[in-house]
Amino acid sequence: MTDNASGVLFDLLHSQLVAYIYSTIDNKNKCVSQLESLGFRIGVSLGEQLTKDLPRFRDELEVMKFICRDFWSSLYQKQVDNLRTNHQGVYVLQDNAFKLLTHISVGKQYLDCAPRYLALSCGLIRGVLSNLGVKSVVTSEVISMPSAKFQIMVQRT
Amino acid sequence: MTDNASGVLFDLLHSQLVAYIYSTIDNKNKCVSQLESLGFRIGVSLGEQLTKDLPRFRDELEVMKFICRDFWSSLYQKQVDNLRTNHQGVYVLQDNAFKLLTHISVGKQYLDCAPRYLALSCGLIRGVLSNLGVKSVVTSEVISMPSAKFQIMVQRT
Repeated sequence: MTDNASGVLFDLLHSQLVAYIYSTIDNKNKCVSQLESLGFRIGVSLGEQLTKDLPRFRDELEVMKFICRDFWSSLYQKQVDNLRTNHQGVYVLQDNAFKLLTHISVGKQYLDCAPRYLALSCGLIRGVLSNLGVKSVVTSEVISMPSAKFQIMVQRT
Repeated sequence: MTDNASGVLFDLLHSQLVAYIYSTIDNKNKCVSQLESLGFRIGVSLGEQLTKDLPRFRDELEVMKFICRDFWSSLYQKQVDNLRTNHQGVYVLQDNAFKLLTHISVGKQYLDCAPRYLALSCGLIRGVLSNLGVKSVVTSEVISMPSAKFQIMVQRT
C-alpha cells in the first residue's frame, strides 16, 4: 500500500465513523466523548505496535517528541509543526495543516464542525501516552482552519 | 508510514467500528447492513482515488482482477488467493487468510462472529465496483477461519 492510499483509507474510515456517530447520537458532547474513547482504545494498541521495536524512552519529553514525529507521521503523513511546554507537565502541539481538517472548507462558518474531526485524535494521543505510562488529559482547539492545537496535560499522581 | 503500521491502523479502526456498532444496535442484521453501507460509501471514494491514474479498464474481468490484486493489496496487504467466475456475472473471490479474521481465534465456536468482520469489506467491494460502473450485490461466507469467500453478483440492466 502506498503512503497515499493508506492515508486516504484512514481519512475515509475516520470521516464515515464521525458521520455515523453524529447521525446516531443527538447530544454533541456525547459524540465527542464517544469518539475520544474509541480513539483511546485504538491509541493504546497502536502505542504497543509502534513502540515495540524501539528502545525505552528516557523521559517525558522524549515521549512527546515521539508523538510529534513518529506517531504523527504514521497517522497524518507529516510531523507536528511546533511543540511547546511549560516544563510543568503541559505540552502544546501545533499542526498548521492538520490532515483531518484539510478536507473541510476554510471559512469561519465551518469552525463549529472542527471539534468532531479532532476528538478521535485527542483519544489516540491519550491512548498512546497511556500505553507509554503517561497519564494525561488531551484537549484540542481550532482557531483558524486547517490549523489545530492539541494540549496535553500530564496527570501526576 | 510503513505498510505494517498503516495496516495496523486500519485493523484497529475497523475493529473499534465493529465493536461500537454492535454495542449500539441490538439487531444483528441491522449491524451488518449498517457496516455494509459505511463500507459502500468508503468504497466509492476509494475507487475514485485508487484508479484515477490508471488507464480505463477494458472489461468486467479486468475490473475484477484489479479488485483481486491492487485493491486487495491496498487494504489487506495481500492479494486474493483465488478468483473464479461462471462467465455469467458471478465472481467468487477466495482469500485463504483474510486479514480482518486473523485476529479472531480459530475454532468453530467463533464462526458466529465472522460475518461482522466481513460486512464492511462487502460494502467496500460493492462501492469500488459501483464507482467503476459495475452494479453488484456482494455477499460473504466463512466456512473455516481465517478463510473467507466473497461472492459478487453483477446486476445487469
